[in-house]
Amino acid sequence: MATTTEQEFKVVGTRPIRHDGFDKVTGRAVYGPDISLPGMLHGKVLRSPYAHANIRSIDTSRAESYPGVHAVVTGADFPVASDREENLGGEGSLNFKFLSDNFMAHDKVVYKGHPVAAVAAVSTHVAEEALALISVDYEVLPPVLNAREAMKDGAPIIHPQITTKTMADRAGPRTDTGVVSNVANYLQFKRGDVEQGFREADLVLEREFDTASVHQGYIEPHNGTALWNPDGNLTIWCSSQGSFSVRDQVAEILRHPNSKIKVVPLEIGGGFGGKITAYLPTVAALLSRKSGKPVKLVMTRTEVFEATGPAPGSFTRAKIGVTREGRITAAEATLIYEAGAFPGAQVASGATNMFAPYRVDNILMDGYDVVVNKPKVQAYRAPGTPMAEFAAEALIDEICQHLDMDPLEFRLLNAAKEGDRKADGVPLPKVGCIESLQAAKDHPHNAAPLEGPYRGRGVATGYWGNAGFAASCAISVNSDGTASLVEGSPDIGGTRASIAMQAAEVLCLPAEDVHPSVVDTDSIGYTGVTGGSSTAFKTGWAAYEAAQEVLRQMRERAAKIWEIDPDNVEFTNGAFHSTADPELRVTFKDLASRLGSTGGHITGTANVYPRGAGPSIGTHIVDVEVDPETGKVKVLRYTANQDAGRAIHPSYVEGQIQGGVAQGVGWALNEEYFFDDQGRMANSSFLDYRMPTCLDLPMIDAVIVEVPNPAHPYGVRGVGETGIVPPLGAMANAVSRALGVRMSSLPMTPAKILEALWAKESNS
Amino acid sequence: MATTTEQEFKVVGTRPIRHDGFDKVTGRAVYGPDISLPGMLHGKVLRSPYAHANIRSIDTSRAESYPGVHAVVTGADFPVASDREENLGGEGSLNFKFLSDNFMAHDKVVYKGHPVAAVAAVSTHVAEEALALISVDYEVLPPVLNAREAMKDGAPIIHPQITTKTMADRAGPRTDTGVVSNVANYLQFKRGDVEQGFREADLVLEREFDTASVHQGYIEPHNGTALWNPDGNLTIWCSSQGSFSVRDQVAEILRHPNSKIKVVPLEIGGGFGGKITAYLPTVAALLSRKSGKPVKLVMTRTEVFEATGPAPGSFTRAKIGVTREGRITAAEATLIYEAGAFPGAQVASGATNMFAPYRVDNILMDGYDVVVNKPKVQAYRAPGTPMAEFAAEALIDEICQHLDMDPLEFRLLNAAKEGDRKADGVPLPKVGCIESLQAAKDHPHNAAPLEGPYRGRGVATGYWGNAGFAASCAISVNSDGTASLVEGSPDIGGTRASIAMQAAEVLCLPAEDVHPSVVDTDSIGYTGVTGGSSTAFKTGWAAYEAAQEVLRQMRERAAKIWEIDPDNVEFTNGAFHSTADPELRVTFKDLASRLGSTGGHITGTANVYPRGAGPSIGTHIVDVEVDPETGKVKVLRYTANQDAGRAIHPSYVEGQIQGGVAQGVGWALNEEYFFDDQGRMANSSFLDYRMPTCLDLPMIDAVIVEVPNPAHPYGVRGVGETGIVPPLGAMANAVSRALGVRMSSLPMTPAKILEALWAKESNS
Repeated sequence: MATTTEQEFKVVGTRPIRHDGFDKVTGRAVYGPDISLPGMLHGKVLRSPYAHANIRSIDTSRAESYPGVHAVVTGADFPVASDREENLGGEGSLNFKFLSDNFMAHDKVVYKGHPVAAVAAVSTHVAEEALALISVDYEVLPPVLNAREAMKDGAPIIHPQITTKTMADRAGPRTDTGVVSNVANYLQFKRGDVEQGFREADLVLEREFDTASVHQGYIEPHNGTALWNPDGNLTIWCSSQGSFSVRDQVAEILRHPNSKIKVVPLEIGGGFGGKITAYLPTVAALLSRKSGKPVKLVMTRTEVFEATGPAPGSFTRAKIGVTREGRITAAEATLIYEAGAFPGAQVASGATNMFAPYRVDNILMDGYDVVVNKPKVQAYRAPGTPMAEFAAEALIDEICQHLDMDPLEFRLLNAAKEGDRKADGVPLPKVGCIESLQAAKDHPHNAAPLEGPYRGRGVATGYWGNAGFAASCAISVNSDGTASLVEGSPDIGGTRASIAMQAAEVLCLPAEDVHPSVVDTDSIGYTGVTGGSSTAFKTGWAAYEAAQEVLRQMRERAAKIWEIDPDNVEFTNGAFHSTADPELRVTFKDLASRLGSTGGHITGTANVYPRGAGPSIGTHIVDVEVDPETGKVKVLRYTANQDAGRAIHPSYVEGQIQGGVAQGVGWALNEEYFFDDQGRMANSSFLDYRMPTCLDLPMIDAVIVEVPNPAHPYGVRGVGETGIVPPLGAMANAVSRALGVRMSSLPMTPAKILEALWAKESNS
Repeated sequence: MATTTEQEFKVVGTRPIRHDGFDKVTGRAVYGPDISLPGMLHGKVLRSPYAHANIRSIDTSRAESYPGVHAVVTGADFPVASDREENLGGEGSLNFKFLSDNFMAHDKVVYKGHPVAAVAAVSTHVAEEALALISVDYEVLPPVLNAREAMKDGAPIIHPQITTKTMADRAGPRTDTGVVSNVANYLQFKRGDVEQGFREADLVLEREFDTASVHQGYIEPHNGTALWNPDGNLTIWCSSQGSFSVRDQVAEILRHPNSKIKVVPLEIGGGFGGKITAYLPTVAALLSRKSGKPVKLVMTRTEVFEATGPAPGSFTRAKIGVTREGRITAAEATLIYEAGAFPGAQVASGATNMFAPYRVDNILMDGYDVVVNKPKVQAYRAPGTPMAEFAAEALIDEICQHLDMDPLEFRLLNAAKEGDRKADGVPLPKVGCIESLQAAKDHPHNAAPLEGPYRGRGVATGYWGNAGFAASCAISVNSDGTASLVEGSPDIGGTRASIAMQAAEVLCLPAEDVHPSVVDTDSIGYTGVTGGSSTAFKTGWAAYEAAQEVLRQMRERAAKIWEIDPDNVEFTNGAFHSTADPELRVTFKDLASRLGSTGGHITGTANVYPRGAGPSIGTHIVDVEVDPETGKVKVLRYTANQDAGRAIHPSYVEGQIQGGVAQGVGWALNEEYFFDDQGRMANSSFLDYRMPTCLDLPMIDAVIVEVPNPAHPYGVRGVGETGIVPPLGAMANAVSRALGVRMSSLPMTPAKILEALWAKESNS
């Protein structure tokens, strides 16, 4: 349900059937692992059984001579990677040296599951048999598995070449401290006078919080199929969040020109930030180059868990000062994030966004990005932010309890507005913070009674800044008055529809009459990843511009037919007409049918690299009930209010919000990577890694708030990530209020809840 | 060898390795029959055993219930087709009612091989078994197999609904005479005063000529695979000369919106005009709609011969008057072309082009397009023209013998120039007629002695007008300084290279750095067929324009970076520079690498529908030797001089010329469709249908003459078709001179040659 209902649009804001719907529900959509090519080999990866070890030697000779094996590669087959870094916006950054090391170990392994070799053979079974014939001589080293342990003097050093680099802020220059350490990155944000702020406070609370590593939980495993032609042309088929990103990673790691690489996007079964890294396409490419045949690799579920990137585990110490009226005077936090085995960058997001929904004039943020012997973290929906905002929201909830203030009123009092600065000093553009809070306040859920023991209501707000990136779109007019739209953004959350609709609105066509195709990297202009909640924003914008270009050319054509000045042709309500002569009028459809015979067909193209991706802020309300016997938490009711700027296709906005909530609830209650003391993951299957199912959740009421983003033609804000930010705090606050004990460690497993209850009982 | 060598171009005129070369020579290119889809069914077509019969009834029930059969279709499954006609330029025209009848018989069959039903089953074998279970009750009718027989009173009428339509000229309005007849179309061209012209002549010769139906001889058989989704989206995979043409034929015949049909082009193993008609894609689509599964159909070689279109067999009566100095005073001809089972349109081309290389002020042309009970003719390289020009060239050669004139001098004397009018009254643009004659005259071959008995030298000139059609092209700049080019023209003769080169020339890039992709109909603007020798011309032009648009945007970008006016930025020698400040200079490659960070990437798009496809004229010289014992003709030497306007990639121009000559020699000497008196083709295999192999031909010396087409940015003229026009006349003239007997019936089989020799001996 949209809270604003403007009638100015014909297509935007409606709910047409998605263009790829039939393919998806009839099983005809081709996903990454579905690909099959003539003569294709199957690859498997040999992975380290140790979390930390030096590689003394690798003997692949027996595997190479094994019948049915066509190629074996190790780290020695990888070119020496450059140390170049590439900023991925909200999705972190890429260091190509570390990326290469992560794709295939060179002289040491730094997490269990780290690739050490790969085999291409006539079948996966033969490939697996060949893996067993590869001998690796390891010198096993003690692992370090926790960020705070890893920061201690005397901790095992994972990368002797890593020295701490400081980040003044996200955009600023980095300086190398020269100190060899497991702290890969350190940042500090400081604004105002924090000491003075705390002195002005009537109440100062300081608490510690921690969260576990969690997985994106996409259904489709990582995959990559490659064919390296003798002329150097390399074709890669895979599902990913960004075909061009896969192309550029493979190009950089294998030192091959990116224009000789074509990445063909296949349908993707979920990404959430975890399908940006080209783990397998790179290995498949090398195996294909060696074997001369197409090679396909698909991970098992265990490989996905052990060797691709989860969200970082975190430790946060947070401190807030408030007046007795509830106004924040100062805030301070230290964030320590596990990077996994190679440096990450997500702590910068956490430090920037932790207090972003609020106006905080005096602030000090310290962030540590620490390598540990676990898989390298990757982006996961609002990367780096849910754990930080969890700490802020939980602490605010405790403050509200101390002040006996309504948590929504507290937040409204402190809500950030346009021009207020985030921790990193960047002022906010127009945001819907107050509007999302007000929507929560006005929602019947807020007024509904919640009675009974062990029940609690939690509230939390969450912020995500969203990203831009490049996008390209081409629209061709068909003679039957429809249009074909070509784009480069893999469709994860219904963006074929939301992008086509933005073009349809311009062209005054039904959404169904704009036919979107997601094409390969040779067939469309550069397009950034489907990530940073950027796609409906950036590629939609490109579609809008390409459609405008179509109209421009069609106005010219009408003017040519009528022999008048194009400036005197207008397009309204699906028809071109002369501003001077009302007799001169032709519908889009009729003019489309005449293009071929009046000067040729029409294609409009646009490339954009838009700034001004407006942040999206959401406020959630959740009711829970805790079973004091088992410690199980039941979610009774969940309402998520979120600013979408403008909802192009409300169903997919709601879907994004609901998906984010479901994942956030899992993060809060159940999900965690469980490692033994040797760094071996103990729950690397969906049976043991406990994600919420539909039986664990009520229907989530997604309330779309619309505060149009003034930077976008339709006011779009990205909506994909914000939804996962509030649930951690909202759930913790609800459970804390249900139990009468503040919960500060996620996930709130039954064991932790029972421990909290027992501790409370023994204290009372 | 080019006769002009200008140094103004860096890429145009060079011979880079074709972009698809490795895929083609390593067997990785995917041709139409190579496609395989999950759950795919295999289709087969039941064909009429009779050349002419009414269908009383069809019983498909036993086939439908046969295990493994998923769908059976007959003519009853085809919607009633409209009688709409679509002009295909030089490739004839489409009447959709006849097209539908040709794809599947409704109430009568009109040639042996005419489809009457089709089956989709789990394998081709099951499908074939099911075909045998379909009972068709035929009322067999007498066939008529020869155009002149079919024109006689009392001849069996093939289509009682066909009445003769007159064509004033190719572009003029048609009038229906209302006369039921096998003459589907009649035209007359008349200019000047023909009677007066013949009165002014010192010599008038009149002769009759005939040619047989011949086949294009492509290697790959016709194919079509379709998947009809429940939402009405239909995808077709096939090789064809035009994906958009296949799309539009299927749309029209099945009354399905063309925007709901996506045609995916696969590599094509030869077309020559014969792969424009969507015989199988239409049937595959219906079978898929019925079965709910993807269905593939591939013809056998016999099906290709019996049920797809050859070039028409022809009869021509020609009359020329000349002065004793050799100047043509008048010409007159009657052309009777076999249309096959449905009306054709090729006689218009023949009548237009027959005397086009010459200035003829007084001319009268009558053309008859006659239906007979044979497969409906289709385009074949310069459709309708080789047989007509054969008659003209053979008659001219006899006139030269009478006048004792050198045949090249005669032609030079009468050669057409810019402004001279063809038979249809249309004036010629700038043409290279004199230049191609002069190249032949200057060639060492012309001066080389040819001694010995039964040897002869033949000369002939040929004209083809070429066509335009719509084309679309998009070019995206890659960050490594290369470009990706997207086009919609199936690549038959190396056009990936010749199109990419035209963009590369603009962008000052090596040809290898422009990467062409031929994409599906949803992914590029409307593009006409690869036919009419239009592709290097039209799609090359689109590439040129798209590249200019890329430069325009890059100049703007450079101006933005330098903060100067874009009008002050020039692009020369691969670099952008300020016209005011020599310090401001950036190479294409460097600017390409900076696009992402300076405002986004760049794509240039262009749609063109160019007029001004310049005609191409060629003059051939051939030496033959006839074995008087066996009648076998040996080609001793062959030189083909042809105006290419501007040869973009000379190797592919030479290839086109050589290919045309090889096919023309086959047409002259050996090839013919052999029918028994019941209209059954007796030689429907490549063993029995005798095409020249490389052992039958010497290396053909292709001489590229360059008279740039002033209408095209690089001066391109289509080159694909002209090469097949002169060989029929040149070969007939050479054999006639070798024998001392005029040969007027093609093919000049050993039997005909021996008969001519014996007749000469018995007369002497």
